[in-house]
Amino acid sequence: MDATTRIEKSLVEAISRAESRAGPPRLAAAVRHAVFPKGSRIRPRLCLAVAEACGAKDTAIVDAAAAAIELLHCASLVHDDLPCFDDSPTRRGRPSVHAAFGEPLAVLAGDALIVLAFETIAREAACAPSVLPGLLLSIARAAGMPFGIAAGQAWECEPRIDLAQYHRAKTGALFVAAAAAGATAAGRDAGAWHAFGEGLGQAYQVADDIRDAAGSAEDMGKPIHQDAALGRPNAVQRLGIAGAVDWLEELVAEAVRAIPACPGANDLRSLIASEAQRLLPKELSRHAA
Amino acid sequence: MDATTRIEKSLVEAISRAESRAGPPRLAAAVRHAVFPKGSRIRPRLCLAVAEACGAKDTAIVDAAAAAIELLHCASLVHDDLPCFDDSPTRRGRPSVHAAFGEPLAVLAGDALIVLAFETIAREAACAPSVLPGLLLSIARAAGMPFGIAAGQAWECEPRIDLAQYHRAKTGALFVAAAAAGATAAGRDAGAWHAFGEGLGQAYQVADDIRDAAGSAEDMGKPIHQDAALGRPNAVQRLGIAGAVDWLEELVAEAVRAIPACPGANDLRSLIASEAQRLLPKELSRHAA
Repeated sequence: MDATTRIEKSLVEAISRAESRAGPPRLAAAVRHAVFPKGSRIRPRLCLAVAEACGAKDTAIVDAAAAAIELLHCASLVHDDLPCFDDSPTRRGRPSVHAAFGEPLAVLAGDALIVLAFETIAREAACAPSVLPGLLLSIARAAGMPFGIAAGQAWECEPRIDLAQYHRAKTGALFVAAAAAGATAAGRDAGAWHAFGEGLGQAYQVADDIRDAAGSAEDMGKPIHQDAALGRPNAVQRLGIAGAVDWLEELVAEAVRAIPACPGANDLRSLIASEAQRLLPKELSRHAA
Repeated sequence: MDATTRIEKSLVEAISRAESRAGPPRLAAAVRHAVFPKGSRIRPRLCLAVAEACGAKDTAIVDAAAAAIELLHCASLVHDDLPCFDDSPTRRGRPSVHAAFGEPLAVLAGDALIVLAFETIAREAACAPSVLPGLLLSIARAAGMPFGIAAGQAWECEPRIDLAQYHRAKTGALFVAAAAAGATAAGRDAGAWHAFGEGLGQAYQVADDIRDAAGSAEDMGKPIHQDAALGRPNAVQRLGIAGAVDWLEELVAEAVRAIPACPGANDLRSLIASEAQRLLPKELSRHAA
């Protein structure tokens, strides 16, 4: 089964187990809307790729960790789109959750997705008790405070923003956790994969800045030029398009150099290079590493 | 160490570990505001009491589970108070989190508290790997969907409300989880404690209805008569004050009868009887069981 199929299958299973005819149907619909149809799934693909490179045997716990990471990412998108943050009417080319279901269900869908992420890992845990605490801790750190997604988003509410911490927490942390979870699930040392995950997270952030400044709303599936409109820091504003593309290439190259020795290191290097091409708007993608 | 001291200590430790001088300070302040000073702490006290009755040896995992349950409860209060739900300006006699810190930080503080709940259990897990999956699953079920707190709150967004499911999910689920977690942490069968937890959850809901209808805002620390104002179901509206107090007594008596055989059953029975007195407004408390 290829990575995409495995990821969609584990997400469908996780969401289905959270549904019941005796539960509130609109919450269930809002949660489905937040997770399907799929976005890039870049974080769970990273988790699977690292697990594969590390020679993971137990695919069930890897798939659960990958699904959990994507569920946390979807939760953060639902809450980021709320009127009190970005007030975004669209996401992935469709109405955002609050636009489609109202603000109360968007708050609750995000909450339910966070819980479901941990539940999904716990459910597979009985088969892999030795890796469970490490998996949970690295994923929780990436989602919460002081250095996870919630903390990253919270920097936008501070009178003085620590830019490095802001990007590291809002975007980088879940990439670090995805790489760490893949390694942990394979019984390898998660710490060795930190620099790789962090480098990819930074690269993704720069690519996102470039797409926000130079992409089309159609390609993005959400409003563009939001960083300028909301006064948020953006690499293109600092470096120009060409400078930002150069920086992206450098970050990807650094991440590739940071891949620790492991059975599938070569395949992983090729995968990262081809994935990097997909991060940029089509007309810029020939420049990317 | 008495139960209250143990609970406050484990909450202080959990919150402190989520703080860092390098993290966003206003989020940290909002999270502290949501958890301290203490509310009734009735759910973690229930968890500790069941663990004690079951003869639990490992207090660290019991304390972590109790703290996790209270953190989830605090998260639900923060999100319930948001303008898109109850729009409550006060909680525990002080400004609610969104009133004190704004709506964005209230959303994120709730998110961070949910994550912290699971992180708190995971942190103690290495010492108690055999109970970890069971603990996580019962607590996740009580918080998420289809039958946890998020689902309970989501019934308020449905055109047709299933009243039994609404109360069971919004209030009962976390009482069930508190009792189950206490038993699980002691290595006992959690299922045997379900009826006890559910009965206490129902009793608490009726007591809350009575206090909303007949208590004072000062005693409650939050606005009263909210059920009538927001058109929510309330036992006093259906049964009158005397009828609701009778029903409360019956529910407490049933819960006490449902206590399974365990080393500390007698002490637990006495504790529940005395706790039930505290659930009612002062002028009604002589009626309670």
